[in-house]
Amino acid sequence: MSQQPLTHCRTHREHYLQALFDFLRIPSISTLPEAAPDMQRAAEWLAEAMTRIGLDQVAVMPTAGHPLVYGQWLGAGPQAPTLLFYGHYDVQPVDPLDEWLSPPFEPTVRNNQLFCRGATDDKGQVYLVLAAIDSYLRTEGRLPINLKVIIEGEEEISSPNLAPWVEEHRAMLACDAVLICDSGILAEDVPLINHGTRGLTYMEIEVQGPATDLHSGGFGGVVDNPFNVLVRILAQLQDGETRRVLIPGFYDQVAPPDALEERLLAQVPVSDPVVQGLTGAPAVAGEAGYTAAERLTVRPTLDIHGMPGGFTGEGKKTVIPARASAKVSMRLVPNQDPAEIATLFERTVKSLAPSTVKVTVRTLGLARWSLVDLNEPAIQAAARAYEAGFGTPPLFMRGGGTLPIVADFQDILGRPVVMMGFGLPGDNAHAPNEKMSLTLFQRGMETVIHYFALLPEMMQAG
Amino acid sequence: MSQQPLTHCRTHREHYLQALFDFLRIPSISTLPEAAPDMQRAAEWLAEAMTRIGLDQVAVMPTAGHPLVYGQWLGAGPQAPTLLFYGHYDVQPVDPLDEWLSPPFEPTVRNNQLFCRGATDDKGQVYLVLAAIDSYLRTEGRLPINLKVIIEGEEEISSPNLAPWVEEHRAMLACDAVLICDSGILAEDVPLINHGTRGLTYMEIEVQGPATDLHSGGFGGVVDNPFNVLVRILAQLQDGETRRVLIPGFYDQVAPPDALEERLLAQVPVSDPVVQGLTGAPAVAGEAGYTAAERLTVRPTLDIHGMPGGFTGEGKKTVIPARASAKVSMRLVPNQDPAEIATLFERTVKSLAPSTVKVTVRTLGLARWSLVDLNEPAIQAAARAYEAGFGTPPLFMRGGGTLPIVADFQDILGRPVVMMGFGLPGDNAHAPNEKMSLTLFQRGMETVIHYFALLPEMMQAG
Repeated sequence: MSQQPLTHCRTHREHYLQALFDFLRIPSISTLPEAAPDMQRAAEWLAEAMTRIGLDQVAVMPTAGHPLVYGQWLGAGPQAPTLLFYGHYDVQPVDPLDEWLSPPFEPTVRNNQLFCRGATDDKGQVYLVLAAIDSYLRTEGRLPINLKVIIEGEEEISSPNLAPWVEEHRAMLACDAVLICDSGILAEDVPLINHGTRGLTYMEIEVQGPATDLHSGGFGGVVDNPFNVLVRILAQLQDGETRRVLIPGFYDQVAPPDALEERLLAQVPVSDPVVQGLTGAPAVAGEAGYTAAERLTVRPTLDIHGMPGGFTGEGKKTVIPARASAKVSMRLVPNQDPAEIATLFERTVKSLAPSTVKVTVRTLGLARWSLVDLNEPAIQAAARAYEAGFGTPPLFMRGGGTLPIVADFQDILGRPVVMMGFGLPGDNAHAPNEKMSLTLFQRGMETVIHYFALLPEMMQAG
Repeated sequence: MSQQPLTHCRTHREHYLQALFDFLRIPSISTLPEAAPDMQRAAEWLAEAMTRIGLDQVAVMPTAGHPLVYGQWLGAGPQAPTLLFYGHYDVQPVDPLDEWLSPPFEPTVRNNQLFCRGATDDKGQVYLVLAAIDSYLRTEGRLPINLKVIIEGEEEISSPNLAPWVEEHRAMLACDAVLICDSGILAEDVPLINHGTRGLTYMEIEVQGPATDLHSGGFGGVVDNPFNVLVRILAQLQDGETRRVLIPGFYDQVAPPDALEERLLAQVPVSDPVVQGLTGAPAVAGEAGYTAAERLTVRPTLDIHGMPGGFTGEGKKTVIPARASAKVSMRLVPNQDPAEIATLFERTVKSLAPSTVKVTVRTLGLARWSLVDLNEPAIQAAARAYEAGFGTPPLFMRGGGTLPIVADFQDILGRPVVMMGFGLPGDNAHAPNEKMSLTLFQRGMETVIHYFALLPEMMQAG
């Protein structure tokens, strides 16, 4: 292949980073209703960037929620493969704000790391693909493949409008493979291809006791406190010794990994000591009888994310709150059904509720797990691209996170999804001080350039 | 006695209410550091009001925390009894703000009820005593008793500086009895004297897991989630069936009520149906084997007030928070020792903590329970005053709340404390829509006037 696109992306790294900084400064937090104007602004910024790069038919396309941005370059001709690239421009909320070392929406480089909300998830990764396309088009005048690009604005809120949109635009999106850059590798020199993702069932429990907040001096001892009840319910959802989820039926559909999966799991250098080093936890923990690699990829989980209600300020207040809530999600694996898990969760929580309170269980989100066939030529091309970009072949590991659109793309378009990620486990996605390694920004651009170059021959061979 | 003070307080009720409104508008929330200027303003407002009424030597006196306000009227001569009146000008925080039907610091009258933070706890009750003094001095030119007044600004944060201040000013505060108007009666026509208060041990638990917030996609299943751990710890502090506190040793020092106490408890019209009507809870609950009146007064409790940490906003965020906390308090009864209970609490919590997290237990407040001797003439005078003010004699019931200064006054000054309150169980003290009945504001002024008149003869007879 020509070295020119690679050289261009190296010599123009600073230029691309400055553009990315502008993109990162837009606080596009999809879950906050008040951020709607910023969401629109981010979409328009992207459309301008895609047009400038040379994509055609660029459009900000409305959905029932936040808009998505489409563009394409189909100049490689009908014999060349067509790749659909997907990413998202929305980001997570930034609380707790006081733990950020620099403002969450002010891109700041420290120690060769770019700190900003969205740096790795997913604006940084979206932009490195755009930079790879730009480097190709500016040096070669063309791409070796046909390319379609959709960047959505609702990934962090479980993409409620993407699948219907893809379904509606199935003909327009016809392709040979889908590329997603929204995941991570294990270390700067340990590349990784995710060949699956976990699903998610996200629930909220609300316990209503008294009609209004009460003073515990006036009523302590005569009514049930919603928090006292709620912690009892939550404590019964997970075994304190084995960390197994105690919801009846929760594990019924969990498929044990097959022989190939077992072999791949054994190669993954994720272990309890590695996890401890990455997280700084006093000691690791998880479901008894499984390795860290298994617990992170092929086993389901249950996590409490927050418990709104009552008094959470400084100092002390002796209130019996009228309501206490909990946000709880479960990561799911093949063949658990997110909706069925929601039903089991609700049934179990309600069965644990005493008659002294009213318990409401709401489903905040459902997302399917996915699995990708490792024998697909588009996946094999990705492995070769990583080897070219990193000097070492990638590992294969199912992702612990959730990308519902993987299953949706595979089902609706009938084509394999390739997850090439350039994040790191310590990048603080969804946490304060989110960052991206500038080394991986560079390697990411180069790997994607290699992928564009390798895809035609691998698809032909496949 | 002369009817003139009574007539005056009736004809000037609107005038007194307008002054109280000014007092209520000052947002004197003692627990908020940023409210310090408002605390000073409230103290100065009070000092001005006390001077205007005709008290002498009025002063805003500094403490290590918020100032207190002192004033006296010693014109009744050495043969007359001396009463020390105590109240507080600080109030509770106002969250959750969206549940207030009118702004928390804008006094609003609806349906003969005065709504405002502090209306009943304790600005309204402080001001009705000042109005009673004013009515006496303006009509009679003198009081039948000597009077000393201290109004502090730290009651809602457990009065950390009051006991040392009283200790230092013991000679200045010498008196025959202490009057506190900071409690409630059972209904507008069911007056009540509290002859005791519960103590309080207020703790905070912080569970630290990973060093920073983590994404549950990247780490779900390989580290313990601090909230998952915390709910397990909290759930083991109280039995889900009997609602008994499971901290070893918690009940060891609890004294069973004596025969007189049992007789008084039987007269108290607090029952499960009454509690349910007052609170609107789906069903009442509490320690098995005890009546509602017992659970509220002579039995200790454990309440979770809030669980800060993690994601508590709208929508969903899949964070494994680095930290999860709980604010927990226990109401205590004779002869439980608040410091010893704090030690038992901390020991139990730590014994329940797995090695996967770091658990910190902090004591946020300790306050003693109190008991008052019903045979004291100052108490008997209060019973007579209620009968004169309400047309019906009061019940005697220990209070469920905490007034640490009751025990402090009794210990340091060696004199009985009389708790005459004019709040109602539905007044929402410490909750949104705090209020005071305007009927009870009026009856309160009149009852206090009767008390001033009755005290000399009862003390002489006693």
